[in-house]
Amino acid sequence: MPESVSVFGAGGFTGALTARLLHRHPSFELRALTGRSDVGVRLDQLYPHHRVPLELEELDLDRHAKVDAAVVAYPHGAAAPVVAELLERGVKVVDLSADFRLRDPSLYAEWYREHPTPELIDQAVYGLPELGYRERIAGADLVANPGCYPTAALLALAPLARAGVIEDVVIDAKSGVSGAGRAATEATHFVTVDENVTAYGVPRHRHTPEIEQELGVLGAELRVTFTPHLLPLDQGELVSCYVTVAGNSDLDALYTDSYAGEQFIELTDSPPGVRDVRDTNVCRISVHRDERAGRVIVFAAIDNLWKGAASQAVQNLNLMFGLDEGEGIE
Amino acid sequence: MPESVSVFGAGGFTGALTARLLHRHPSFELRALTGRSDVGVRLDQLYPHHRVPLELEELDLDRHAKVDAAVVAYPHGAAAPVVAELLERGVKVVDLSADFRLRDPSLYAEWYREHPTPELIDQAVYGLPELGYRERIAGADLVANPGCYPTAALLALAPLARAGVIEDVVIDAKSGVSGAGRAATEATHFVTVDENVTAYGVPRHRHTPEIEQELGVLGAELRVTFTPHLLPLDQGELVSCYVTVAGNSDLDALYTDSYAGEQFIELTDSPPGVRDVRDTNVCRISVHRDERAGRVIVFAAIDNLWKGAASQAVQNLNLMFGLDEGEGIE
Amino acid sequence: MPESVSVFGAGGFTGALTARLLHRHPSFELRALTGRSDVGVRLDQLYPHHRVPLELEELDLDRHAKVDAAVVAYPHGAAAPVVAELLERGVKVVDLSADFRLRDPSLYAEWYREHPTPELIDQAVYGLPELGYRERIAGADLVANPGCYPTAALLALAPLARAGVIEDVVIDAKSGVSGAGRAATEATHFVTVDENVTAYGVPRHRHTPEIEQELGVLGAELRVTFTPHLLPLDQGELVSCYVTVAGNSDLDALYTDSYAGEQFIELTDSPPGVRDVRDTNVCRISVHRDERAGRVIVFAAIDNLWKGAASQAVQNLNLMFGLDEGEGIE
Amino acid sequence: MPESVSVFGAGGFTGALTARLLHRHPSFELRALTGRSDVGVRLDQLYPHHRVPLELEELDLDRHAKVDAAVVAYPHGAAAPVVAELLERGVKVVDLSADFRLRDPSLYAEWYREHPTPELIDQAVYGLPELGYRERIAGADLVANPGCYPTAALLALAPLARAGVIEDVVIDAKSGVSGAGRAATEATHFVTVDENVTAYGVPRHRHTPEIEQELGVLGAELRVTFTPHLLPLDQGELVSCYVTVAGNSDLDALYTDSYAGEQFIELTDSPPGVRDVRDTNVCRISVHRDERAGRVIVFAAIDNLWKGAASQAVQNLNLMFGLDEGEGIE
Repeated sequence: MPESVSVFGAGGFTGALTARLLHRHPSFELRALTGRSDVGVRLDQLYPHHRVPLELEELDLDRHAKVDAAVVAYPHGAAAPVVAELLERGVKVVDLSADFRLRDPSLYAEWYREHPTPELIDQAVYGLPELGYRERIAGADLVANPGCYPTAALLALAPLARAGVIEDVVIDAKSGVSGAGRAATEATHFVTVDENVTAYGVPRHRHTPEIEQELGVLGAELRVTFTPHLLPLDQGELVSCYVTVAGNSDLDALYTDSYAGEQFIELTDSPPGVRDVRDTNVCRISVHRDERAGRVIVFAAIDNLWKGAASQAVQNLNLMFGLDEGEGIE
Repeated sequence: MPESVSVFGAGGFTGALTARLLHRHPSFELRALTGRSDVGVRLDQLYPHHRVPLELEELDLDRHAKVDAAVVAYPHGAAAPVVAELLERGVKVVDLSADFRLRDPSLYAEWYREHPTPELIDQAVYGLPELGYRERIAGADLVANPGCYPTAALLALAPLARAGVIEDVVIDAKSGVSGAGRAATEATHFVTVDENVTAYGVPRHRHTPEIEQELGVLGAELRVTFTPHLLPLDQGELVSCYVTVAGNSDLDALYTDSYAGEQFIELTDSPPGVRDVRDTNVCRISVHRDERAGRVIVFAAIDNLWKGAASQAVQNLNLMFGLDEGEGIE
Repeated sequence: MPESVSVFGAGGFTGALTARLLHRHPSFELRALTGRSDVGVRLDQLYPHHRVPLELEELDLDRHAKVDAAVVAYPHGAAAPVVAELLERGVKVVDLSADFRLRDPSLYAEWYREHPTPELIDQAVYGLPELGYRERIAGADLVANPGCYPTAALLALAPLARAGVIEDVVIDAKSGVSGAGRAATEATHFVTVDENVTAYGVPRHRHTPEIEQELGVLGAELRVTFTPHLLPLDQGELVSCYVTVAGNSDLDALYTDSYAGEQFIELTDSPPGVRDVRDTNVCRISVHRDERAGRVIVFAAIDNLWKGAASQAVQNLNLMFGLDEGEGIE
Repeated sequence: MPESVSVFGAGGFTGALTARLLHRHPSFELRALTGRSDVGVRLDQLYPHHRVPLELEELDLDRHAKVDAAVVAYPHGAAAPVVAELLERGVKVVDLSADFRLRDPSLYAEWYREHPTPELIDQAVYGLPELGYRERIAGADLVANPGCYPTAALLALAPLARAGVIEDVVIDAKSGVSGAGRAATEATHFVTVDENVTAYGVPRHRHTPEIEQELGVLGAELRVTFTPHLLPLDQGELVSCYVTVAGNSDLDALYTDSYAGEQFIELTDSPPGVRDVRDTNVCRISVHRDERAGRVIVFAAIDNLWKGAASQAVQNLNLMFGLDEGEGIE
C-alpha cells in the first residue's frame, strides 16, 4: 500500500516538479497540492508537461496534513511554521526551503531573518545522502533538502574535504534561469537573460554559509568565496571549484573511493556539461590538477530542479520510508 | 585621403567583422579581402548582416600587399609568414593571431609550435592600448592584437597588478560560441551548445601564458589558473577574477585612477553583463571586496568579436595612423 | 542647427531605442525623455547598451513640449491625448501606438476601444515610406508609425497588391520576445519562452485590420488570416506569406521594379533570416513560386524594434524635417 | 522473455534516442548498435544523457541480424538494402528513413532517387497508429516510420480530411535544430541558428508528397503548400495549418470523436507549445475557426525526435509484438 503524500507550495517550479515525480512514483500516492496563488487551477494547466491532473488548493492543514509524508516548497521563513504544524501531526517532512539547513540559528538570522522555530532545528537532518547522511535521513522526521548550489559544490568538494587537504577554495557557479523561480521579474524576463551572462549575489550569496557549514562537518573549516552567475538556459547548474590543496593525493583514487556504489554520482575524465544531467538526479563530476598553478579544479554538474531540489527530495523520501533510494527518480 | 587597407583571412568571424568596420571607416579604404576558402564568394553572401560587397580572393601578395595597412586574421602559425612578407613590403600590420603576442619564442613553442619567424617578435607591440601600450602602438609597424580572454582578464586585473598587490588569482571565463570560430564541428553544433555549459581547455588553455606575460610586465609575476567555459550565446565574454590581495587598497580609487580618460572602459557598481557591451569596443568592469574570505572579485565583460578582436584591431590601426583612437568604432 | 526632440514613454523597449537613435542623430538634439515608471532613473541604467545619459522624467507638457518634434511611445489609448496636446502646441509627432493607424474610428473601436480623439485621425499619415507615403509623410504633422507585423507583411505583399493579383493570403508571422514589451509576465519569463514556440492572438490579432486597410489602399480588398508566433529569440520578425495569385506575373520583375531605389529594402533569392537584418532599418524579402500548389510564397524579415518601430520612426522624422531619409539609421 | 532488438545507425540523433528507449524498455532487450561512423565508441560517450553503455559496431548482418526486431536509422537510400537483408532473415523492421513511406516508386524517384528495392514497398505499412494503421502495423513485418513533419501535419489534419471538408491547405512548420541531424554544417552551427529564424526547403521540401499521399488515403486529394522553418531551439516541432473548409462542421466534436481513446493525442483549447510535449510521444493539438477569413486553423506540437521519430518507432514495435502500445514510452 502506497504512502500518502501532499506537496505544499506546488505552484512553483520545484514544488510542481516534486508533484510530478510523486504522481508517478510507484510507492507514493499523491493526495493533494496546495498553492499560495493559482488556487483552483489544475497543475497540468500551469505546467502541461508535468501532466499532473490535480488542482492547487488553499492550505487547510486539517485536510492536507492527513498524510504520511509532506514536501514543503514554501519560501524561506514561510516554510518553518507549516513544517512545525506538520511535525506536530506526525507527518514526515522534507522541506525544500533554507529554514532547517543551517544548524546555528544566529547564522540563519545573519543571512536570512530571525528564525521562526529555532527549537526544531535540532530535529532536522541535512538531506544530502551522498555526504554521509543516508542513515540519519532514514531515521528522520524532518529532512532539510539542500540548496541547489550547496548540493553541487559539496558533492564536488567532499572527497577533498574528508581527506583534509583543502586549504582554500573559490567556487564559481553557473545556473539556468529556472533557479530564479517562477516569479516574473526584470531579472527573469527573456530579453534580460538571452544572449547574456552576469554574476549576482556578489559577494554574499545566501548559499555561502550552508556550503561552509557542511564543509566544516566534513573536516574543512574555512571561508569560501562563492559567486553564482545567471546563464541563458532553463535547467542546469555547473560549479567550477578552484581548490588550493595540501600534499599530492591521488585524485582519481580519492574520488572513486568516495563515491563507490553511489548510483547518482558519475565521475568523468572530461569536464561535464549540464546537458549530460538534464532531467536526472545525477551529479556528474570531473577533477583535474593544474600543475602549473598548484591547484585542483573540480567541476560538478546537476539539474538544479532535480538533484538540486525535487528529485533529491524524493530520494530523501525514499530513504525515510525504507524504499529503494532511486525509486521513481531513475 | 584615406589609407588603403586589406584584410587577409576575411572569411572567419573576426576577419569578416574587421572588414565590415573598415568598410565603413571614414579614414580607411577597404581594398581587398583574401580567404583561404570561399574564394570568389562575396562577403555579403557569407555574412549578409555585415553588408560588405567585396569578394574573397585568393592570396596574391603582389596585388594585395599594395596597401598602407593590413589586418591578418589567419590561424596561428599561418599568420607569421604572411606578416613577414607584408612587413618586408612596407605594409603596417595588425595581426589577430597569437603569433606575435608572446615575446619568448620558447614559450610560443611550448604552447603552440616552433615559431616560424622568431626574428620578427621584437618588432611586435602588444595591442592593448589601455594597458600602457598606446604610444608604442602609435609607432609600430607590427601590432599583435591580444587574445579575447587576455583582453578582458588584463583589463580586469591591470589596476591591481600595477599596484603590486596581487598574490594569487583564479580567472573563470565564460564565452559565447563565436569565440570558437566559424568551423562547423561537434563542439559548435547548436544541439551541443544549446541548454548547456561546460569548461574546456582544462587545465592548460593557450591564453594562459599571454595573461601571465602581461601581468608580469605590469609587475605581477605569478602563475594564474585560467579556465574558460562555453555558453549558449553568440557574442560576449565575461571574466570573473578571484584575487588574493595584499593590503587594503581603496579599490574604487585604484580603478578610477587607472582608467581615467579611457573612453572604452566603463566602471560600474554592479556586475556587468555581456549584453551591456554587445557590438561595442567597450570593456565594462566592476570590482568587489569579499570581506569574509579576504578576496577581491573583479568582473570584466567584452564582446569577444569586437574588443576581443576586430574593433580592437581597428583601434590599433587608428593609433598607428595617427587617427582618433575611436574613429569608426564608437 | 539641430531640431529638438523629446521621446515620450522612453522606458519601454521601442521608446528607449528611439532615444538612442536620436541621441546620436547628427540633425536632432534629444532634449528630454519621459517615463510612466522609473522616473528619475537614467536611461543608461535601465538599458546600459543604449548609452543614453538622460533621466526619465515625469510628463510635464509645459516643459517637454517645447521642442520641434516628439516621438510618442505610449500604449494604445494613452497615446492619443498626449498626441493631441503636442499637435496643439505645434510639435510634429511620430506616434508609435496604434491610435492613428486605422482610418475608420469604428474599426478602432471594434479592435481596441472607443477612440479618444477621433477628430485627429484625418491628420495622420501612415508612416511606411516604401508603401507610397513618402511625400505625404514629408508634409505631415502627425505620422502613425506602423505596427511591426504590418510593416513586414505589407512590404512583403505590396508589389502583388499593387499588381492586383492577390486573391487570398495567409500570413504566418514569427517574432522575438522583445515584441511583447518590457513588462515582466508569465509570457515573457525566460522559462516560458526558452525551447518553445507557440502561436498567440488566435484568430484575431489586432494587427489584422491594419494589414487589411493598407492592402485595400494598394488595391487588394480582402480578409487575411494573420497568425503570429512567439520564438525564443530577442529581436527579429519573419513573416511567411502564402498568396493565391491570379495570372502568372514575372515575380522578380514585379519586386525589383516596386522597390527600385529603396535603400532599406533588400531582395534576395533565398529565404531571409532575421539575423540578416538585426539592428538595422532593413526589410529583406524573397519571393518564390510554388508551382505545384499554384501559390506564391513571400518572406520578409525585419528587426521588430528597428524597422518595426524605432528606426522607422526616425526614418519618418527625417522625412518630416526634410533630411536625408537614412540619416542616423544607416 | 524479452524480444531482442538491434538499432542500425545508432550514432545519429534519432537512432541514439531509439537505443535509449529500447535499452530501458521492459519487453525488449537491446542487443547491438551499429554505426556508420564512431565505430568502437560507446553510445554513452557520444550521448552521455542517454546512458546507454553499448558500443557502436560496424555493420555485420550475420551477427546483428540474429534478433527478433530491428530499427533502421540510416539515411534515405542507404536504408532500403539493409531493410531488405533483415526482412529476408526474418527480422521485423521499423525503418526511420523515407525509403518505404511513399507507395509509388516513381514518386520516390521524383523526390529522392531511383528506389533501390521497389519490390518491397508493398510490404511496408505506414507507421502512424493514430491514423488508422494500428491493426495493419500489428501484422506487419516492415513499418515505415513517418517523417516528423508528416506526423504532426497529418495528426493535425486527419479529422478534417476524413470528414471530407478540406478544400485547400497551407502548412507552415517550425522545427528545432535536432531535426537537421547530427552532421556539423554551416546550417547547424550555433552562430547560424541562434537569434535567427528562416525558412528552408522552399518550395519543395521532401515531406510534401508524404503528406499529400496520406491525406489522399484519408479522402483529401489535393496539393499542399508545406514550408518548414528552422528555429533556435533543440527539440520540438510545431505545425500551423491553414485550412479552407467546406461547410460548417462542429470542429470540437470532430476532433474529440476522431481521437477518443488515443493516449498520445492531447486536445487543448489554446495553441500548444513545443515545451508541452518535449521528451514525450504526445501530439498536442488545438483547432480554431477564423470566422473573418472563413478558415480553420489547426496547430499540432510534437517532439521531432520522439513522436516524430524514435518513440513512434517504439510505439510501432510495441504494436508489432502485441505489447501495450505505450510500453516504455509513457
